[in-house]
Amino acid sequence: MGPHPAVAAIRLAVRRVLHDILTDHHREPGRHSEPPGTAATAGVAREPAHAGPRAASPPALHERPPAPLVLVACSGGADSMALASALAFEAPRLGVRAGGVTVDHGLQPGSDLRAEEVVLRLRALGLDPVEATAVTVGRDGGPEAAARDARYAALDDAAERHGAAAVLLGHTRDDQAETVLLGLARGSGIRSLSGMAAVSGADGRYRRPFLRIDRQTARRACMVQSLPVWDDPHNTDPAYTRSRLRHEGLPALEKALGKGVVEALARTAQLSRDDADALDDWARRAEAGVRDASGKLECGKLYALPSAVRRRILRRAAIQAGAPAGSLFARHIEEVDRLITGWRGQGAINLPGKVVAQRQGGRLVIRQG
Amino acid sequence: MGPHPAVAAIRLAVRRVLHDILTDHHREPGRHSEPPGTAATAGVAREPAHAGPRAASPPALHERPPAPLVLVACSGGADSMALASALAFEAPRLGVRAGGVTVDHGLQPGSDLRAEEVVLRLRALGLDPVEATAVTVGRDGGPEAAARDARYAALDDAAERHGAAAVLLGHTRDDQAETVLLGLARGSGIRSLSGMAAVSGADGRYRRPFLRIDRQTARRACMVQSLPVWDDPHNTDPAYTRSRLRHEGLPALEKALGKGVVEALARTAQLSRDDADALDDWARRAEAGVRDASGKLECGKLYALPSAVRRRILRRAAIQAGAPAGSLFARHIEEVDRLITGWRGQGAINLPGKVVAQRQGGRLVIRQG
Repeated sequence: MGPHPAVAAIRLAVRRVLHDILTDHHREPGRHSEPPGTAATAGVAREPAHAGPRAASPPALHERPPAPLVLVACSGGADSMALASALAFEAPRLGVRAGGVTVDHGLQPGSDLRAEEVVLRLRALGLDPVEATAVTVGRDGGPEAAARDARYAALDDAAERHGAAAVLLGHTRDDQAETVLLGLARGSGIRSLSGMAAVSGADGRYRRPFLRIDRQTARRACMVQSLPVWDDPHNTDPAYTRSRLRHEGLPALEKALGKGVVEALARTAQLSRDDADALDDWARRAEAGVRDASGKLECGKLYALPSAVRRRILRRAAIQAGAPAGSLFARHIEEVDRLITGWRGQGAINLPGKVVAQRQGGRLVIRQG
Repeated sequence: MGPHPAVAAIRLAVRRVLHDILTDHHREPGRHSEPPGTAATAGVAREPAHAGPRAASPPALHERPPAPLVLVACSGGADSMALASALAFEAPRLGVRAGGVTVDHGLQPGSDLRAEEVVLRLRALGLDPVEATAVTVGRDGGPEAAARDARYAALDDAAERHGAAAVLLGHTRDDQAETVLLGLARGSGIRSLSGMAAVSGADGRYRRPFLRIDRQTARRACMVQSLPVWDDPHNTDPAYTRSRLRHEGLPALEKALGKGVVEALARTAQLSRDDADALDDWARRAEAGVRDASGKLECGKLYALPSAVRRRILRRAAIQAGAPAGSLFARHIEEVDRLITGWRGQGAINLPGKVVAQRQGGRLVIRQG
């Protein structure tokens, strides 16, 4: 008898990602070097077409000691405990060493004991090395962003200390759906709808094997494997936007639109990401063609571009001039765009970071004022 | 003392659209001829840059009799009654004739009397011609789609009979937000997130002046003008997806994400539409370059394209082969795409409309089987 379907599903997801990690690991030390969409457009061939990363199998492992180390980031919750269990099962079969890190955010009393408990649970799964690492959560960007920044800094540090080839994160399809809705609420375009990437971070360090696995499957996998799990109180704290979305917003949306909403949101993330990559690429290529000899943006040439491409060029120019990307909203770019598409002698436009955009003799000048 | 701010807002929105209609009307009889994004890409200049459609003013009206007719489609609800009132106010000031049409869907007993009442209200506003037109709602695509199809057919017919230059529709920013969420639930990519267009239909016949006006403003404008309005029972019937979304889904989302959600969704619509137009354009241009001398799609060249562009080419090819666009989902295209990006000897893939996609000797063949 094979494993329970939920266990089979999480193992398969992890196995695929370990294959990818091994392929990248053996291909070159820099790993995952090609930024999305840079070498690809009509008529410009990239490296000889092959059948995709998954089809190439890694060379025999005994040729290249030592085995790469893959860490799992584990909060002790169901998602990341399921991930840890699948990693513990699959890693030895693929000649990968598996370890774990749990981050103590220090936000509740007793969080240090909790972290020690998670360490014991990860060791019990056979992971090695395993460590708890304590962080100090600042306040920048709100409580959720500050906790996330501290967590990733700690994970980066752990990965580097242990020389890990990758760090696995337990984000599920449900997390992805929530991330898309959070991005939607910003109303800043398709990049913010593209959710979390399956591969991210320096050299593609972070991998998210569960982006197509639903939370329910992860829970079930823990249950049938009798893995104790811990529910992070933040996940149900209505002070957190994500928690409100999870427990009220998304269920109401499902009630109105049907059960497929989570899957639809997750698929939207992937499609939006690909679309945003392609358009960013187009904007990068088009940019050189709309500057004059002295490097200034020419309004006439900008006007000739599709709005989608023009607005991306304007956004890039504003960021290059010093506007902080996080404070630059769609409405700012819209206003700058009207200097091109609705010119009626407007004055200079103030952007975040003391950046000023103005039209001067058929040129668009964007600079720190 | 000027008008109430709500009344000023709806009048301004209508005035702008009437200006656009006049500009297009006087420019050429075919009106709104350039499909989105066809003539625009890096390096390919379109017509000499000018300052946007709004800046050009229509020639003096007495030069070109007769005055164009603009119809408002009015259900008698607050949104379209507000629209009708603003049209009645602005049209004579701009030398435009204003009329109205109300469609009797025949879905409730007494709907014919209701339609007659709307006719009287529109006449009371000074609109002329005004008519009620009865339709028979079929069943294709569900009750909402069937009602919509019947309604637009009746509006098209009325516009043609009266030789109208445009038909105004009262969709508000809230309707737009709902449409984006309905599209999101399909999970089929950014085109379905792009909501309703400000200009649509044959020759840009339909115009939606209120896409940036919220429902509350339209209601208030009716109230302060003492306009009687009628609430369509469908709008509160939980059997309708849109109604569930309006009364449960969207409020829950606002509670979780904050009051700006409707605006964010509406802005997402506009940004997604521009992005989708630009990528469709790219795909159209790239298509010729990935076909061999006999017109077959070459897998190697397809592989070299960004996924966003490749998937659009595949979708177009499937539709050209006879797959009905409405039944062709993202997961179908994903599966065909794996013949290119994850080739491991898969067999033929069945698509809707008895269309079959298969890889044959480095070529992708999509045809009705």
